Amino acid sequence: MTTARGFFVRSEPLRLTQFSKKATNFEILRNLEICVLGEGVMTDQPTAAVIGLGSMGWGAAVSLLRAGIATHGVDLRAEVLEKFRAEGGSSFDRASDAVADVDVVFIFVVNGQQAEDVLFGSGGAVASARKGTVFVICVTMEPSRAIDLAERLEAAGMLALDAPVSGGSAKAQAGEMTIMASGRAEAFDKAGSCLDAIASKVYRLGDAAGKGSQVKMINQLLAGVHIAAAAEALTLGAKIGLDLGMLHEVIQECAGNSWMFGNRGAHIVAGDYTPHSAVDIFVKDLGIVTGEAADHPVPLSQTALALFKEASAAGMGREDDAAVAKLLATKGGIKLPGMT
Amino acid sequence: MTTARGFFVRSEPLRLTQFSKKATNFEILRNLEICVLGEGVMTDQPTAAVIGLGSMGWGAAVSLLRAGIATHGVDLRAEVLEKFRAEGGSSFDRASDAVADVDVVFIFVVNGQQAEDVLFGSGGAVASARKGTVFVICVTMEPSRAIDLAERLEAAGMLALDAPVSGGSAKAQAGEMTIMASGRAEAFDKAGSCLDAIASKVYRLGDAAGKGSQVKMINQLLAGVHIAAAAEALTLGAKIGLDLGMLHEVIQECAGNSWMFGNRGAHIVAGDYTPHSAVDIFVKDLGIVTGEAADHPVPLSQTALALFKEASAAGMGREDDAAVAKLLATKGGIKLPGMT
Repeated sequence: MTTARGFFVRSEPLRLTQFSKKATNFEILRNLEICVLGEGVMTDQPTAAVIGLGSMGWGAAVSLLRAGIATHGVDLRAEVLEKFRAEGGSSFDRASDAVADVDVVFIFVVNGQQAEDVLFGSGGAVASARKGTVFVICVTMEPSRAIDLAERLEAAGMLALDAPVSGGSAKAQAGEMTIMASGRAEAFDKAGSCLDAIASKVYRLGDAAGKGSQVKMINQLLAGVHIAAAAEALTLGAKIGLDLGMLHEVIQECAGNSWMFGNRGAHIVAGDYTPHSAVDIFVKDLGIVTGEAADHPVPLSQTALALFKEASAAGMGREDDAAVAKLLATKGGIKLPGMT
Repeated sequence: MTTARGFFVRSEPLRLTQFSKKATNFEILRNLEICVLGEGVMTDQPTAAVIGLGSMGWGAAVSLLRAGIATHGVDLRAEVLEKFRAEGGSSFDRASDAVADVDVVFIFVVNGQQAEDVLFGSGGAVASARKGTVFVICVTMEPSRAIDLAERLEAAGMLALDAPVSGGSAKAQAGEMTIMASGRAEAFDKAGSCLDAIASKVYRLGDAAGKGSQVKMINQLLAGVHIAAAAEALTLGAKIGLDLGMLHEVIQECAGNSWMFGNRGAHIVAGDYTPHSAVDIFVKDLGIVTGEAADHPVPLSQTALALFKEASAAGMGREDDAAVAKLLATKGGIKLPGMT
């Protein structure tokens, strides 16, 4: 049971649900009656856990708290747990301790192997979760592995959503991620208010696990190629003597623009490679693309992957993924902003 | 002298200029006095010629007419000239006949060699143009060639703008192209009302010819790589069984989006390869990129260029540039919409 301040509506079957501030949810008002305005006690607000408080998981966890959902955060780093307590959350360093009394568990670890460990490994979540807990797996991984994890969760009596996210750390912090999810309707229903708390768009891509991860894989193909293309374009621009700030501004008004050119291009223009994402993330994600593509041709993904691998081997694996521009600049014999 | 209906303003030095309906131009009102409202005779409205009435040139020419600027259209195709007359323009099949009494000449031919021919070849424009005519060269070409043409135009007593455009045929038709231009201030001033008639954004990239073409070249690098990436992403999506319409919709809300993924991706989803641009345009434009880059690394451009060349060699050179997806599908042993 949690206490939260806000608008409440009475729905059928009769129960109190916190009314989201998000405009998209105003539609449900049509069939509802506003019965309480102000602070109240809610009997069915779910409780949530977020395993992995990196940039995306942190954003999800604080967005859940902001929506009035009691949230347990799990991370290995004591300073992150301390910071999460300061935000009003409950902090745990073991997944098994955090999930015993929660309804929805978000997994925001780095890769498929870590997801398997926090779910089924020693101290993992599944052994101590209640039957029927919804596990929302927001990790970018091989679609085949996502299907396997969902099957094992359901065999253990749990519900599962294959639910990778997109949007970057700023949108995560604002509760405005995009979620690409697939899984059973019951899982969507039970996790609904939590998904709404962290995302501005929730795409329901069908009943079957795997569809979410497949769409995310295609997104990462494009994202990785576009980052490398932005790096190639701005580095060539610098080589031929163009002002990078002007070039970056003009292209954003032209047909050559991409979300990544706008976002990561700004990092290159500023010479700021503070990691929001990281080179090694795209070594992983484009590796998933080329692996799952098997003999299907993905020449641009392969070319971009080779660049990210080379940048990682040159020591830039934990820098911002836009650091691939520094690799190209070095090869071209020029210096970009921020290169010494 | 032309007649046009609209708002007129009196500027310093005293003269009548048609007042554009475009919001961006309202700023000039600050220092001006509205003196006529309604129909009037204007003594200094420029006259224009557009050489090359392909999709972009056609859009420019009808946008000039719509702005009340008397416009001469030049093309080799009789049916296009007839259609232009029906729009209220004057039609010519030789550049030399079209430019004798105009102030601003737009060049919208396909490549640098054609631009050279219509300017300086037999029946070319420069020999019959008045001194001081502004030549606005909107052709994507090697920056080195753009510089050469501008120098030869100035040596012949003309003014020149190196002014490639972006935006596609729909924006051209609406008078909302983006222009990336460099050249002398006098040329910008004389061509100003014509540029405003065809573009929603006119970037002034400095005094020197070449800067416009350099920025355009970088735009084409990104555009070409992004088209090929969209083709690769959607083809892999089809291979793994995703619904292409859903995939196209979801990605547009995610960080993997690009202007080209939205635009050309729609062609792939619909299986419609009616040429708006064409495969051979990117064989040319990415060829310019790799040529001008010389020994500077542009691996993604090279990979994309190889795909466009292969699609062209397979007979798709004059199809929409998105047809590179059909090449990848064939290699991957699948069929996309529109493939038989």
